[in-house]
Amino acid sequence: MECVPNFSEGRDMAKIEKIVESFRAKPDVKLLDYSNDEDHNRLVVTVVGEPEALKKSIIEAIGCAVQLIDLNKHAGQHPRMGAVDVVPFIPIKGCTMEDAVALSKEVAREVSFRYNLPVFLYEKSASAPHRENLAAIRKGEFEGMAEKIKQPEWKPDFGPVERHATAGAVAIGARMPLVAYNVNLGTNKLDIAIDIAKKIRFIGGGLRYCKAMGVDLRERGIVQVSINMTDYTHTALYRAFELVRVEARRYGVPVIGSEIIGLVPMEALIDTASYYLGLENFSIDQVLESRIME
Amino acid sequence: MECVPNFSEGRDMAKIEKIVESFRAKPDVKLLDYSNDEDHNRLVVTVVGEPEALKKSIIEAIGCAVQLIDLNKHAGQHPRMGAVDVVPFIPIKGCTMEDAVALSKEVAREVSFRYNLPVFLYEKSASAPHRENLAAIRKGEFEGMAEKIKQPEWKPDFGPVERHATAGAVAIGARMPLVAYNVNLGTNKLDIAIDIAKKIRFIGGGLRYCKAMGVDLRERGIVQVSINMTDYTHTALYRAFELVRVEARRYGVPVIGSEIIGLVPMEALIDTASYYLGLENFSIDQVLESRIME
Repeated sequence: MECVPNFSEGRDMAKIEKIVESFRAKPDVKLLDYSNDEDHNRLVVTVVGEPEALKKSIIEAIGCAVQLIDLNKHAGQHPRMGAVDVVPFIPIKGCTMEDAVALSKEVAREVSFRYNLPVFLYEKSASAPHRENLAAIRKGEFEGMAEKIKQPEWKPDFGPVERHATAGAVAIGARMPLVAYNVNLGTNKLDIAIDIAKKIRFIGGGLRYCKAMGVDLRERGIVQVSINMTDYTHTALYRAFELVRVEARRYGVPVIGSEIIGLVPMEALIDTASYYLGLENFSIDQVLESRIME
Repeated sequence: MECVPNFSEGRDMAKIEKIVESFRAKPDVKLLDYSNDEDHNRLVVTVVGEPEALKKSIIEAIGCAVQLIDLNKHAGQHPRMGAVDVVPFIPIKGCTMEDAVALSKEVAREVSFRYNLPVFLYEKSASAPHRENLAAIRKGEFEGMAEKIKQPEWKPDFGPVERHATAGAVAIGARMPLVAYNVNLGTNKLDIAIDIAKKIRFIGGGLRYCKAMGVDLRERGIVQVSINMTDYTHTALYRAFELVRVEARRYGVPVIGSEIIGLVPMEALIDTASYYLGLENFSIDQVLESRIME
């Protein structure tokens, strides 16, 4: 199982190291990456492990962050509602989404009890459709949560019906792996990237598991369609890429390349290779590394 | 490290199981696959492991095969010169070609001594250029080896200068992973597949690490360019695919798909995806599974 918890501390390295310490040198848990952003004042950790071992270390890290971080003194560019803002569990090799949902609920129950923390279940773990989207839960942020949490439709799924005085509230849930994927266009006209982004994304009538926006890469003198693929198993990477190309034709603008930010599951790229080579009867079990991991 | 030993027994399941047994339930060794072919009368095993552990189990399997297989009574379609015909070591994740060469020589020395077996080093481990190609070493097969081995240019690298009475001789060496890759054409004209194969392969002036031949898929009513990619890190999979397409244009014949036979290293397909998506600054370390394996 993979977990990518977000903590509201991106500046104080001593505190950051203490939180990350919860994932180091633990049996069956492997810290893959952590990066703090000073502007966002936020820490994002990527960790994988056996479900039980991962659960223990996540609970420990949440306890650590609740103790160290005071949201009353927190300012940063990224919206946040808690010392631990969001804890997504992501099923990888050998785990199902059901496993991830179950694990997220176990962690939610345990941390609400141990740290007296209100918890909202979100995404695939959500208890109601209006709680699936993290942005909807977090709207109003830490400051607004004091009142919002008392409304019946925003009663937490676990823990007290009251904002934690310093640690706010946390969203915990299960989701598919996100792939951050950008397609670069051979023009400096931001309007074109924005227009293409609107057409390919779900809310604009585009691909179901695709979020997108236009971004200006001023230094390179080009623009970019910046994409979040929210379920690459249903909306393939190559489909987004080819659709950007299709839409760019309208402007006579070439697609000059693309980039993957951060980690990407092997399957997303193997599916892409398989499409372009027109592979017949190919199975992921034919990939050497996939067999070794088994 | 990976090893793909070939044994000259494809029919007697009791003997096959005894040989394969050497790779089962050994610490740090994982049997990935084994398949016996009755027509070829040959067994191909795929095994991965930590170098030292792999070495021990390979030496055991060779001893087992030398004891069980008598080449004087062996007949099959596949050329062979020994009870253990060929033992290639293939460096994978974390191992270098130098490691594989070193390991192949250790195994060669040990089995020549233990089982009184003549050993030829081949491919990257070869002691002279005329010994790189397995087909050149094996020419004349078991039957011809009795005389061939006495010629100075075919003196074995290890062991007696004499064919083993029942087990013949063995080739041991290090090589890149082979990818068996076929491209299907939308025609039933075998001539076209043969012609394209000749143009794309190394000996015909084509790609350096590419062997190819034309094959008739009579049941499907199509033909195929059947390819062995002998070093996908230097001759990329997509390059062979696109070159077949380029050559097929001359005949107005469409490429209708392709297929990978057996195992393929993750990197070969990720490189392909990266090419078609035009990925900028992409590193294999961004692949989640690659990080987990580390």
